[in-house]
Amino acid sequence: MINVNYETGDSILTAADACAAGAGEALRALRAEAMPFTGWVNYAERLTDEAMSDIEQAAAKIRADSGVFVVIGIGGSYLGAKAALDFIGGGIADGSAEEHPRIEFAGFNLSAAYHAALLKRIEGDDISICHISKSGGTLEPGTAFDLLRSLLIRKYGEAGADARTYVVTDPQGGKLKAMADERGWKSFPIPSDIGGRYSVLTPVGLLPLAVAGIDIREIVSGARAVMGAPETALAGAVRLACVRKAIQDSGKAVEVIAAFEPAAASFTDWMLQLYGESEGKDGKGMLPVGVVFTRDLHSLGQFLQEGNQIFSETFLRIVKPPAELGDMNRFNEAALRGTLAAHRSANIPVTVIDLPDMSARSFGEAVQFFEIVCGVTGILMGVDPFNQPGVEAYKREMMALI
Amino acid sequence: MINVNYETGDSILTAADACAAGAGEALRALRAEAMPFTGWVNYAERLTDEAMSDIEQAAAKIRADSGVFVVIGIGGSYLGAKAALDFIGGGIADGSAEEHPRIEFAGFNLSAAYHAALLKRIEGDDISICHISKSGGTLEPGTAFDLLRSLLIRKYGEAGADARTYVVTDPQGGKLKAMADERGWKSFPIPSDIGGRYSVLTPVGLLPLAVAGIDIREIVSGARAVMGAPETALAGAVRLACVRKAIQDSGKAVEVIAAFEPAAASFTDWMLQLYGESEGKDGKGMLPVGVVFTRDLHSLGQFLQEGNQIFSETFLRIVKPPAELGDMNRFNEAALRGTLAAHRSANIPVTVIDLPDMSARSFGEAVQFFEIVCGVTGILMGVDPFNQPGVEAYKREMMALI
Repeated sequence: MINVNYETGDSILTAADACAAGAGEALRALRAEAMPFTGWVNYAERLTDEAMSDIEQAAAKIRADSGVFVVIGIGGSYLGAKAALDFIGGGIADGSAEEHPRIEFAGFNLSAAYHAALLKRIEGDDISICHISKSGGTLEPGTAFDLLRSLLIRKYGEAGADARTYVVTDPQGGKLKAMADERGWKSFPIPSDIGGRYSVLTPVGLLPLAVAGIDIREIVSGARAVMGAPETALAGAVRLACVRKAIQDSGKAVEVIAAFEPAAASFTDWMLQLYGESEGKDGKGMLPVGVVFTRDLHSLGQFLQEGNQIFSETFLRIVKPPAELGDMNRFNEAALRGTLAAHRSANIPVTVIDLPDMSARSFGEAVQFFEIVCGVTGILMGVDPFNQPGVEAYKREMMALI
Repeated sequence: MINVNYETGDSILTAADACAAGAGEALRALRAEAMPFTGWVNYAERLTDEAMSDIEQAAAKIRADSGVFVVIGIGGSYLGAKAALDFIGGGIADGSAEEHPRIEFAGFNLSAAYHAALLKRIEGDDISICHISKSGGTLEPGTAFDLLRSLLIRKYGEAGADARTYVVTDPQGGKLKAMADERGWKSFPIPSDIGGRYSVLTPVGLLPLAVAGIDIREIVSGARAVMGAPETALAGAVRLACVRKAIQDSGKAVEVIAAFEPAAASFTDWMLQLYGESEGKDGKGMLPVGVVFTRDLHSLGQFLQEGNQIFSETFLRIVKPPAELGDMNRFNEAALRGTLAAHRSANIPVTVIDLPDMSARSFGEAVQFFEIVCGVTGILMGVDPFNQPGVEAYKREMMALI
């Protein structure tokens, strides 16, 4: 069970109390999916055994015929699966988990160097690829998909390549769905009413994770557990939304999110998109910044302790770390407590979020929890937490240059 | 040659003009090493052929007898070598560069999971280790060093382990130097008048890089080229310091540093320590934040375009990217230009820094350039850019708990 401790000072907590009624109203609206793009709220509840089996069967085929599975996507089509792969198991399987395909990512940048190295790294392996894009029209994954399709066709011929090509896309319209139907690529749906950053518990995340050998039913059960616990998990999420709103109102412009396990760094990256893209609009929002402690206490620690204190902090604490080794876990816990004491004495508001462990179930729980926190915070702020009008600006300028 | 373009607006540039005299004075003080902990300024100039050969000879031994070289350090004893390893060559050698030892890092966090995975990953290899710590008394590397020494002793016995143990530490006093002398470990100096975040061009960075097969003389020559060009490189660094000061004075609280090549992400991490630890004190400084574009345009792009605009941006542009692949480099350049246009229209001050390429020489040049920028900015701000009094706060609290 996720547990939250507030070391934010009394005035923040009093201000948060005043938000409680509005936040409860926001939660009710979310649970009723009464706003556009809130299909994610009860998605895990609705996910059928049949839909999960369909994912697992495709994954079994890929595991049988591929040494590498390349996930082609950017933003919400990339960050969730990356977060889960790094988080679940806490990274301790590194170097020994040779029995399932290696997951590689492509199309999340426009670097020739990155993609040249990727092609070199995988060319000798048996490969399947998955293009994840709601519209199918994004430049980065589209460019990478063309490169990887060419490689597959060289290796396996047209028909062989088609049998190793998967897509996850909006089933209603979209050019990628039309192409998949024409070529006979196996396709999975991103529901139309779920935005990219809220999509990790759909096939967007579940297909790559099933290929990696992770039990996706455990992930889904974690998400369901949050929605099934209105008095504890949901009440905790609503309270955290109120506190985040109160911290913003107190003038903090940045939220520093600190993982105390390096394997949780990509989870904070996923949170940055969730919070930043949902709340950063109309001139509002706290800029979310990810750090890993104690690593970054030796780089940004000086600034955090004595610099311009425009920020609050959120610590992600793993109650049961995924491995034991000498005194390290005891030292890491002392580092968290010590940092808390040092930063409290500098009047930084700190929220400590206890995640039970780094299991698949806890991952699903954390995803659903933070999505609810984010939705409620956005509604309290008076922004639409489910649109992203500003993302198009650079794309328009870029496409004009291309 | 590093080139800087300012898209910051006229009022910033006018304010920067007013700093020119003070900044010139600050540069003269630095060049004269007239303040404590400025031994880094002319270090590359002073570095002898003999000192470089000593590093190269140790590296040749390690390359001959080791499949893995574990660098044990945190903060400035880790970030510089990591930045260089990722940056130089742009990551395109991935998967093929099997002829030199793999470089692994340890002791930069207190995660049992990270270190358990590391030990599992390397236990079958021939191993040499290097403990990098100015004092020798830091908890993270000290704990990791004990673990790795035990592994070496199990594999090679006491004497064999001693022949595979290296240290980089302050030659004047310090318990690590005493231990090295007693056990016969090969040791290299971190000069007493150089702080960790300014130390990458000393053996702290040069030894691991030589082991990785990088030409350290090229790195040093890049640094020397900056100091040998007062009218161009140094004048550019001084101007950038003035602009950064003017941006801060205009009320910006955050500097977002964006790499457009993923392989430069660790270089921005190195910059975060350099800027954050040098300037974040007395309640001052811009919180430095690292992003990779276009990746993070699909996560933080919405916030940057339309959120709370408390930040400026610095783009790191690679003039000659390290690989070609289809249209990717052309698209990546269009993405940079497009983002610039979109963010300019949102009135975000943007500085574009052109680095010529991702060679060893350009790395050395960039390090020396940004160190000068940082030193001059700090002096203009009225802080001591070479101390870090706030780093001790969490350590004191942590050690009290341990």
